[in-house]
Amino acid sequence: MLVVKVGGGEGNALPPVLDELADLHGERRWVLVHGGSARLDEVSERLGHPPEFVTSTAGFTSRRTDRRTAELMAMVYAGDVNSRVVEGLQRRGVPAVGLSGLDGGLLEGTRKEVLRVRRDGRPVVLRDDYTGRVDRVNDRLLRLLLEAGHPPVISPPAVSREGEIINVDGDRAAARVAGALGARRLVLLTGAPGLLRDPDDPSTRVERLDREDVEAAVREHAEGRMRLKLLAAREALEAGVRRVVVAASGRPSPVSAALEGDGTVVA
Amino acid sequence: MLVVKVGGGEGNALPPVLDELADLHGERRWVLVHGGSARLDEVSERLGHPPEFVTSTAGFTSRRTDRRTAELMAMVYAGDVNSRVVEGLQRRGVPAVGLSGLDGGLLEGTRKEVLRVRRDGRPVVLRDDYTGRVDRVNDRLLRLLLEAGHPPVISPPAVSREGEIINVDGDRAAARVAGALGARRLVLLTGAPGLLRDPDDPSTRVERLDREDVEAAVREHAEGRMRLKLLAAREALEAGVRRVVVAASGRPSPVSAALEGDGTVVA
Repeated sequence: MLVVKVGGGEGNALPPVLDELADLHGERRWVLVHGGSARLDEVSERLGHPPEFVTSTAGFTSRRTDRRTAELMAMVYAGDVNSRVVEGLQRRGVPAVGLSGLDGGLLEGTRKEVLRVRRDGRPVVLRDDYTGRVDRVNDRLLRLLLEAGHPPVISPPAVSREGEIINVDGDRAAARVAGALGARRLVLLTGAPGLLRDPDDPSTRVERLDREDVEAAVREHAEGRMRLKLLAAREALEAGVRRVVVAASGRPSPVSAALEGDGTVVA
Repeated sequence: MLVVKVGGGEGNALPPVLDELADLHGERRWVLVHGGSARLDEVSERLGHPPEFVTSTAGFTSRRTDRRTAELMAMVYAGDVNSRVVEGLQRRGVPAVGLSGLDGGLLEGTRKEVLRVRRDGRPVVLRDDYTGRVDRVNDRLLRLLLEAGHPPVISPPAVSREGEIINVDGDRAAARVAGALGARRLVLLTGAPGLLRDPDDPSTRVERLDREDVEAAVREHAEGRMRLKLLAAREALEAGVRRVVVAASGRPSPVSAALEGDGTVVA
């Protein structure tokens, strides 16, 4: 069992991933998780609800998710990006089934009731935000589809216990899925060649990060996408995944390159 | 087994349908099919790709579906409307699973290679249109989900044999689904109280239409939504459905009202 996560905004990077997964179909079970952040920014902007990002009092940045943003997220991730990924797999002969975290309570999470953020340097409390984290994966639904030959293609948003759409991070959702399915490998494909010591310098890639050093690396990467990838890696390892690889998506055979260790291996 | 179709644009009409289906969940198996035409018009307009309708040389009107429209349709039907319907069911405790026709090749169809239309009175041939009809339903996938307690919530678009997104009519897709599942009843909920002799006069409702009179009724209603409902009814009956009811969505308990015959019964 293999779980692969790919960003949703990386248009050109997707075809090689789908080519590879289509080759694997029938030989090896896989689940694909995708994002859609860049596309959500674009559509939200054009629909007159431009994206807003907030920084928590602890210093972490996240997308401000009011009800309208949650609805737009469902539309773009689960409708636009997901349909095109599923279409791409269908064209390659794979009867994939697209699912958001809402479907069958696939990704059930807890909504943060209160979000403490800073705005213009002042602390503000947001109570109408729909951001949360995944607590539970309906792995039974995933196994049902996998056993019937339908690889699941999963995207945020998730669903709260109260049945509301909530925004969750895609990398961390992928980690939960990998853990719930007992996957041995989780591949997080991204625009960078792996975890970088200096985010602007690809030559500073970390080749290997031992599980006992993940905590320190999380503290070091206080902000940005890499922090989330590290949190995802940590959660996956805690849930029993043996090896997480953060690697580049924009190249031929990105999945096998990652599995062969060409990226950052966290284990 | 019961198949219910509801329009996607009828915002206020949806909650009573979801209330009723949530009550039925666990007692009786059902599948919900929905549209999203009005919402697609709105989003397409706002994203700078306003809807266009074409009239075939035979006199039938349909949505002009270029590639961008097909993508917008997937986004709005499968992402926006479908997520909100699934969310509404989750809130009512039903672990519904949303599917578009792409998922697992659920609604497989034939794309019309050539569309002959009239523009400004002159015949024009369109070759870049993505409209078609459903030929095959993956009922195995639906049964799998139903047996696992996950009512499917289905929307267009469908997928062509070549794996492309294609625009298909929701009522007719619901008829195919009902036929493939061996459903005895198909309920088509709509803004009108049933089939009307005069579309502008609700008092002209047809109470009952015998199956042998459907053909004549199709010819009479050469245009518009009612023609598609009649075609759907005919296809459902041909596929073994015993009774199709076209009835009003905007009232309490719309499904049982329809099943009790308060609408147009086609049988």
